[in-house]
Amino acid sequence: MSKGANGGGNEGLLRQLHLRRVPEGIAGPQDFEVRTGPIPRTGEGEVLVEAHYLSVDAALRLIVRDSEEFLFRVRPGDLVRGSVAGKVIESNHASYQAGEYVLGGLGLQSHALSNGEGLEKCDLSQAPLGAWLGGFGVSGLTAYFAITEECKPQPGQTVLVNGAAGAVGSIAGQIARLAGARVIGLTSSAEKCRWLTETLGYHAAINYTEGDLYERLAEAAPDRIDVIFDNVGGSVLDESLRLIAMRGVVLLCGSTSQYAAEAMTGPNNYIWLGTMRARMQGFVIFDYADRYAEARSRMARWIQSGDLKLVEHVIDGDVGDFPLAFEKLYRGANRGKMLLRLPAASN
Amino acid sequence: MSKGANGGGNEGLLRQLHLRRVPEGIAGPQDFEVRTGPIPRTGEGEVLVEAHYLSVDAALRLIVRDSEEFLFRVRPGDLVRGSVAGKVIESNHASYQAGEYVLGGLGLQSHALSNGEGLEKCDLSQAPLGAWLGGFGVSGLTAYFAITEECKPQPGQTVLVNGAAGAVGSIAGQIARLAGARVIGLTSSAEKCRWLTETLGYHAAINYTEGDLYERLAEAAPDRIDVIFDNVGGSVLDESLRLIAMRGVVLLCGSTSQYAAEAMTGPNNYIWLGTMRARMQGFVIFDYADRYAEARSRMARWIQSGDLKLVEHVIDGDVGDFPLAFEKLYRGANRGKMLLRLPAASN
Repeated sequence: MSKGANGGGNEGLLRQLHLRRVPEGIAGPQDFEVRTGPIPRTGEGEVLVEAHYLSVDAALRLIVRDSEEFLFRVRPGDLVRGSVAGKVIESNHASYQAGEYVLGGLGLQSHALSNGEGLEKCDLSQAPLGAWLGGFGVSGLTAYFAITEECKPQPGQTVLVNGAAGAVGSIAGQIARLAGARVIGLTSSAEKCRWLTETLGYHAAINYTEGDLYERLAEAAPDRIDVIFDNVGGSVLDESLRLIAMRGVVLLCGSTSQYAAEAMTGPNNYIWLGTMRARMQGFVIFDYADRYAEARSRMARWIQSGDLKLVEHVIDGDVGDFPLAFEKLYRGANRGKMLLRLPAASN
Repeated sequence: MSKGANGGGNEGLLRQLHLRRVPEGIAGPQDFEVRTGPIPRTGEGEVLVEAHYLSVDAALRLIVRDSEEFLFRVRPGDLVRGSVAGKVIESNHASYQAGEYVLGGLGLQSHALSNGEGLEKCDLSQAPLGAWLGGFGVSGLTAYFAITEECKPQPGQTVLVNGAAGAVGSIAGQIARLAGARVIGLTSSAEKCRWLTETLGYHAAINYTEGDLYERLAEAAPDRIDVIFDNVGGSVLDESLRLIAMRGVVLLCGSTSQYAAEAMTGPNNYIWLGTMRARMQGFVIFDYADRYAEARSRMARWIQSGDLKLVEHVIDGDVGDFPLAFEKLYRGANRGKMLLRLPAASN
């Protein structure tokens, strides 16, 4: 296992990723800095979590923008927000014991104190720890509720997943297939297209970086598109909108193509929503928080039967390698959920 | 009554408005031509309708575009499509008698043959003939079903009507008020703002051509906006989207600001739909065709009690004056539904 560029020799220290400056374009190593210090000790009612996996999320690019418009914001100098899965190594909290595995929005750091708020226990008999940040975590739950409760594709309908090979898309396409829909994936390379059809069971896949996207979509979806599951925004969303079916649904689950743009660009073809009596709607997974257990137990059965594959793209490294992993995510290098696995995971 | 620029002396002839060329910018007189000929005679199963009112619709600009994207298209040389209300003056059709009043999509012409398909009888005891093309016709029915069935504002909620003084907006705002909502109107002059609040009962009105629209909207809607009823599109829709409330509805009823644009521009702030779990949806009145009578009887009661005002902006002229009326509509000169009243209406 690689220790990563910034990992070696620091394992006994707290390592934290701070924002150095507001990024321009895709955020990269120059925009972040690692700060080290002593590992903190738990106070009354606190637990100390040793991070094993850091979640590499596209939405991070949104919260480091120089804008007050979004729910969370990370400013230069701040610890970077992010989800973490790891082990409780010290507990002064009645509900947690040392040795238990947990996840939470603990920030991009090697160790974190928590008073238990927002912390969730990870049962490794259900899924390995990394999956709790991916297909068994928020990404998978997002895909599950978005498809089963918001989009509700009917057998024989056509579902398009924009960003089909990503953390959420890779699960959403499979769940739509399990609902009986014909599933088309859009992704950024021929090699990922093959992976979608051969490994994840997509019925068709299109590399949107080549050729005339509208024509290729129209060919793949001769009966138009009943559900557009969109992670991407931009021209990919725009071209797909021209093919929305009567009373179709466009589910907005993200707009990764826009997070780094100076000004966001909306879908010019939104007028098709009118003609086709379709709806474009937002969705936030936290609204389903009281049903996560139900979703996980159904997903666990699909995993066991081989109907659903959870896919993680794991990069080994330390906290300081996070910006490189983030750049890779933005360049579309990942298949499934991207995770940074810290040295502590192998101890 | 003015005979209009092209009216005098032609009353015994058929006058038809044809498209001369694909317009650039707002369509104007140079883009159309009047053709005259003998008034046709009815064949078996046909009625001859003498047009009294031509409906001046913003959507006309959309169907004369050089594009195959829309449901209907009018090409250079074609008779221009449009809705007409008039009198049956000759009938060889079992269901119609001379002297009855009807409306239908008969095209912009002084006389039209019809086999009865798509023709609707107008009961003048319910509303005057002009209103059957406006508040008692498609515009009013659109407003009625959009508000009562699609948007469903709750008492105390905030409803924003973009294009509030127009044919549909002027009714939609009143119906939202009757549902108990707080109604804000956006329109293009201070004088129309006064009309909205003083005559139509809007709670507030904003002239979107002055000042910072977002700031003025935010001030008028301190609890954000539960329903955006949009006729306009463009920057007006875009700025309002930033204020959409949690689980809000954006109803797309038209996008007049975009019909003449070379390329349409979508709402860049669509990302707010995601954050706010809101939906932006299309709607087509024809889906409610079997409930028009129900809507009209409820609207008739509101009109009688003084709760609802139907407003028509009538211009007198002949078929050839239509392009000038259309230009006026596009410049926002109208209050309520714009109609061209032909000389035959006064005979």
